[in-house]
Amino acid sequence: MRILIVNVNTTQAITEAIAEQARSVASPGTEIVGLTPWFGAESVEGNFESYLAAIAVMDRVLSYDQPYDAVIQAGYGEHGREGLQELLEVPVVDITDAAASTAMYLGHAYSVVTTLDRTVPLIEDRLKLSGLYDRCASVRASGLAVLELEADPQRAVEAIVEQAERAVRDDKAEVICLGCGGMAGLDEQIRQRTGVPVVDGVSAAVTIAESLVRLGLSTSKVRTYATPRVKKVIGWPMQFGR
Amino acid sequence: MRILIVNVNTTQAITEAIAEQARSVASPGTEIVGLTPWFGAESVEGNFESYLAAIAVMDRVLSYDQPYDAVIQAGYGEHGREGLQELLEVPVVDITDAAASTAMYLGHAYSVVTTLDRTVPLIEDRLKLSGLYDRCASVRASGLAVLELEADPQRAVEAIVEQAERAVRDDKAEVICLGCGGMAGLDEQIRQRTGVPVVDGVSAAVTIAESLVRLGLSTSKVRTYATPRVKKVIGWPMQFGR
Amino acid sequence: MRILIVNVNTTQAITEAIAEQARSVASPGTEIVGLTPWFGAESVEGNFESYLAAIAVMDRVLSYDQPYDAVIQAGYGEHGREGLQELLEVPVVDITDAAASTAMYLGHAYSVVTTLDRTVPLIEDRLKLSGLYDRCASVRASGLAVLELEADPQRAVEAIVEQAERAVRDDKAEVICLGCGGMAGLDEQIRQRTGVPVVDGVSAAVTIAESLVRLGLSTSKVRTYATPRVKKVIGWPMQFGR
Amino acid sequence: MRILIVNVNTTQAITEAIAEQARSVASPGTEIVGLTPWFGAESVEGNFESYLAAIAVMDRVLSYDQPYDAVIQAGYGEHGREGLQELLEVPVVDITDAAASTAMYLGHAYSVVTTLDRTVPLIEDRLKLSGLYDRCASVRASGLAVLELEADPQRAVEAIVEQAERAVRDDKAEVICLGCGGMAGLDEQIRQRTGVPVVDGVSAAVTIAESLVRLGLSTSKVRTYATPRVKKVIGWPMQFGR
Amino acid sequence: MRILIVNVNTTQAITEAIAEQARSVASPGTEIVGLTPWFGAESVEGNFESYLAAIAVMDRVLSYDQPYDAVIQAGYGEHGREGLQELLEVPVVDITDAAASTAMYLGHAYSVVTTLDRTVPLIEDRLKLSGLYDRCASVRASGLAVLELEADPQRAVEAIVEQAERAVRDDKAEVICLGCGGMAGLDEQIRQRTGVPVVDGVSAAVTIAESLVRLGLSTSKVRTYATPRVKKVIGWPMQFGR
Amino acid sequence: MRILIVNVNTTQAITEAIAEQARSVASPGTEIVGLTPWFGAESVEGNFESYLAAIAVMDRVLSYDQPYDAVIQAGYGEHGREGLQELLEVPVVDITDAAASTAMYLGHAYSVVTTLDRTVPLIEDRLKLSGLYDRCASVRASGLAVLELEADPQRAVEAIVEQAERAVRDDKAEVICLGCGGMAGLDEQIRQRTGVPVVDGVSAAVTIAESLVRLGLSTSKVRTYATPRVKKVIGWPMQFGR
Repeated sequence: MRILIVNVNTTQAITEAIAEQARSVASPGTEIVGLTPWFGAESVEGNFESYLAAIAVMDRVLSYDQPYDAVIQAGYGEHGREGLQELLEVPVVDITDAAASTAMYLGHAYSVVTTLDRTVPLIEDRLKLSGLYDRCASVRASGLAVLELEADPQRAVEAIVEQAERAVRDDKAEVICLGCGGMAGLDEQIRQRTGVPVVDGVSAAVTIAESLVRLGLSTSKVRTYATPRVKKVIGWPMQFGR
Repeated sequence: MRILIVNVNTTQAITEAIAEQARSVASPGTEIVGLTPWFGAESVEGNFESYLAAIAVMDRVLSYDQPYDAVIQAGYGEHGREGLQELLEVPVVDITDAAASTAMYLGHAYSVVTTLDRTVPLIEDRLKLSGLYDRCASVRASGLAVLELEADPQRAVEAIVEQAERAVRDDKAEVICLGCGGMAGLDEQIRQRTGVPVVDGVSAAVTIAESLVRLGLSTSKVRTYATPRVKKVIGWPMQFGR
Repeated sequence: MRILIVNVNTTQAITEAIAEQARSVASPGTEIVGLTPWFGAESVEGNFESYLAAIAVMDRVLSYDQPYDAVIQAGYGEHGREGLQELLEVPVVDITDAAASTAMYLGHAYSVVTTLDRTVPLIEDRLKLSGLYDRCASVRASGLAVLELEADPQRAVEAIVEQAERAVRDDKAEVICLGCGGMAGLDEQIRQRTGVPVVDGVSAAVTIAESLVRLGLSTSKVRTYATPRVKKVIGWPMQFGR
Repeated sequence: MRILIVNVNTTQAITEAIAEQARSVASPGTEIVGLTPWFGAESVEGNFESYLAAIAVMDRVLSYDQPYDAVIQAGYGEHGREGLQELLEVPVVDITDAAASTAMYLGHAYSVVTTLDRTVPLIEDRLKLSGLYDRCASVRASGLAVLELEADPQRAVEAIVEQAERAVRDDKAEVICLGCGGMAGLDEQIRQRTGVPVVDGVSAAVTIAESLVRLGLSTSKVRTYATPRVKKVIGWPMQFGR
Repeated sequence: MRILIVNVNTTQAITEAIAEQARSVASPGTEIVGLTPWFGAESVEGNFESYLAAIAVMDRVLSYDQPYDAVIQAGYGEHGREGLQELLEVPVVDITDAAASTAMYLGHAYSVVTTLDRTVPLIEDRLKLSGLYDRCASVRASGLAVLELEADPQRAVEAIVEQAERAVRDDKAEVICLGCGGMAGLDEQIRQRTGVPVVDGVSAAVTIAESLVRLGLSTSKVRTYATPRVKKVIGWPMQFGR
Repeated sequence: MRILIVNVNTTQAITEAIAEQARSVASPGTEIVGLTPWFGAESVEGNFESYLAAIAVMDRVLSYDQPYDAVIQAGYGEHGREGLQELLEVPVVDITDAAASTAMYLGHAYSVVTTLDRTVPLIEDRLKLSGLYDRCASVRASGLAVLELEADPQRAVEAIVEQAERAVRDDKAEVICLGCGGMAGLDEQIRQRTGVPVVDGVSAAVTIAESLVRLGLSTSKVRTYATPRVKKVIGWPMQFGR
């Protein structure tokens, strides 16, 4: 099967890192295609950038002209997943949801450690809308921006470990979710440092997408995610960055 | 003061109707400027269209080059309000929130009567995220699309009255919110037919926006709605329809 | 229009301060009438005093024999608003609700800073019943009694600023509500000290009451706030302090 | 021990019926003293009457000049319990709470059948504030006023049975609470007709009050229910009906 | 009447202590019978042990061949109560629920102080399922195992007092529940040390069980707790320890 | 990898059907081992039977003496999963959770269609404890007992379809979960009849268990699911049916 994994920012290096992480856990026979939006911010750390990413991701996916079986939206706490679900028949998996639903199988409560403090409410809101917030012990910010994570992985590990330890000790988390697509690949180090299971959303999303495809399941079209009605839409698809 | 009221769809006639409704309740000295997005759908009835509207609204507001004191986003249950709040200092009022917070002063529970069934979850989710859902008795669909409302106001009244009466009788609503920007102006007829207060979101939003300005209040910039960080953003602003 | 603003305690100086604050934000053409209950406590800081205030406020409003367009109950976290709504057709606005619903337009979460610790649960319960608690980050006590606030405004500012700063830093509040009618007028100082928007409930209530009147909205009479049934009531109206 | 059971309305016959019901379940050695407020409505069916009852009950209890061990407030869904708790050291039991906490030992969910529809929100709000709402399947109105219940018990039984049966069938209630002090004594008939346990709040409150006294427990005075601060209170105690 | 009080662990000394505590609060005429399961763990401090206790308690009660009027399950936060309710007609009272529902009459919020940290989620989950969690300020662990409590009561008091004080100061608890059957008898000391009411679950459960019996109430059999259907069950009753 | 799938009842035919269903979706290289408890009920339809199953499942798994990588508990809404998680290092997946977390990727809300009405509260409570209830539109009973499902699959399909259609139409479900291990294999027929995605819990659980193993994730041992402390346990392991 072929799974599209779409970055929410326009930094190609992050797309590649995410796709690489996805490939490392994909089943034999699964092809991972990494996509970078044609427009948007070099990193997504707030609502404006996230809304822009929402349609940039839809736009990028619609412009992909080969068949595929599922789509992963590889941003943490981002807007847009519901729009993709309307536009597509194949399953759509958001890495925020994937990390959370996976973590819930491993412990009584989980925490998310993310980048900047300003993104915490976005992640909380995303989890609330997805119905996966009840067992969330906390969402904590490491204080590092997305591109800082990329630039200095070891500093990232230290900052994440610090917050993860607080989450376990003070917030009673039993599992840690890595709250940024760019943290893919740090899970093993952080697990060793904290002693609790660490879930990387990209990896989790790959297994969930594969599972949905294998089970022959696709997005329900009876109500919320019904195909958009036929109507006049100006300026869409965008694809202008192409 | 000057208040921008931004339609979420690209149908100019709806922008005009909304602006007209806004003017009818504005205080003397308040100038209402109606804006239509440069791109997007002719009516917004789902997530894809709503996400597209989210950035189209931001784009349209950013391209407005005169001073203004507040912005009203005139779509019901739409995405995007948080993005505008990041980009602007002035208050931003969503008509979904405005109708709900106003209704809560008038009765113990309120219901929303909207257009199509597929938009019900969007409105519920918007109210949940805004923290205004606790006293929501129900969100009900009239079954009429946005443009049908425009085309046949009397049929719209009948369909809305039917659902409003059910909301009062079965769901124990004590106030009805008109759940579509295009319903502006129908409130008085529906109040007479149902006997309960009817809140039009556009009207409510105008008074709230004026109030916030008069009180000298503006969007908090300490966390969620802090100005986006300076970074490279490709393809923005869009404004290509201009 | 004429708006009655009713103090919940029997301290005339507080009534005057509240009315003055209300006048300072009222629209041209709005007459503010301050009322002091005929009986009750000199300050309201708990359930007994608040229940007494509930009927003292109703009693005082009923004894006002001129026409009016709206009533503001100027106590924070107090009982009684629902009773007034039954007795009157005109809108009734509680300043607790007014501050909260206004704050929710300005930030993702708000905190209330009030007087004594013992009043915190009253405020929390009032906000829960009003359906405005979801985005409440915390209710914090300054430790100052109502009359101490009156007596030493500068000390009040210091105590409120301290708790407001904790609310922003520890509870993630983005807006502060001043949780006492007697704090009216301190908002600007506290905003300057904390850097976040500060909402004074009296001011907010004036704009909301004016808005409801302008929109022609009045209390729903279909269920919870229906006029009391005609029956024998002993010892009412009270008005004995007159 | 001596338990005061205070009616919330001024109808002496109801006080007597309530006290009689209380005596029928009291332990040997428990003296039940029925009290009728000096002022207030002949029946309490709404917020205004309930707030008036709140202070009339406090006023009546304070004017009782003999020792006592506990107080029962015998109104369903009424205001005021928290005020009594501040004024007294001895335990205070509201029959709404008593019925609910008892019902929760008997089935997975309970419903309340009360008098008029307008009192339903009061009962729901009382249960929410008391933290006993989670297992409430519904609050249903029989459509009979308090005094109609008194006047025609057989009609009352029929009306209550009808709603109780709907609660069991449609709302999945497994226990029924009789939602009016005036329903005391109907429980056995309704149990026979519906086949589910029926809890009378007055009876339940007597056993709870006795239990608290036997266990040596009294109201916590550390925060919410601390004794009111010493201050000037005008027009209190009232006791003018005496 | 006769009340069975069933220990959840197999330590006979704890059964005796619990039964002794129960007898000290029982009414004249109430016979308390302490039962120890035939199998299971010497102390219950986690899910495996608690599930084992669930059926060991049912097994032990079923093997009791004299008449009885109510059953108390004397473990804190344990599984199994719902099973007993299916098997029996007489009321079943869990001490976790009993402490909580009693505490709610005494203060606005309560905390539980229990043994080991690992049992905290069990207690929270039990209270959530019982619908008694809304007014729970916190569940705190003293760090002492069940058998350590038994062995060194004074050390237990110190550890419990420390957590109780934090609950009152930091979590705003107004009442403390002793969260372990083995803490029975420590309530008075802890009340003196903390100044807030302290509820012992065993004592509370005795008064609740007696009350339910006196009121003639028994478990509802219409749905959740209906008698198990007749079917083939292998290996039950177990009673092998007999 | 090897996955143990444990039936919760003692009917061997159901174990075989479940294992067969599991094998039909398992990846190449995954060995599915079906286990039947040594004791317990021939079908599990209530709390007593479910608690008995809880330890029977633990007992059966512990007596399995070959290596394995994950365990699936194949009962819907059953007790016991947390006990297994304490006893094992490998991931444990309950099919109730698996169906729900899978359904949440496919639609905005899901409903469960189960067997008898008496099992509905068990399923609701299981989903609440697992933190997966927020997007549950309803749990509906088909009215068929577990063994009736086995005996007459076509009648089962009809009864399930009827409730599924009501769930979609009245409760606004967008996905249906088959709420009984014994329904495995009916999903395709029901999907065709209702037009919405249908999730079989056994199939979903297999893919989730495989995913957790592939990702190298295991149960967190820091708190709730820590290995039971070493202590004296009488009568365990049971394994007497062997």
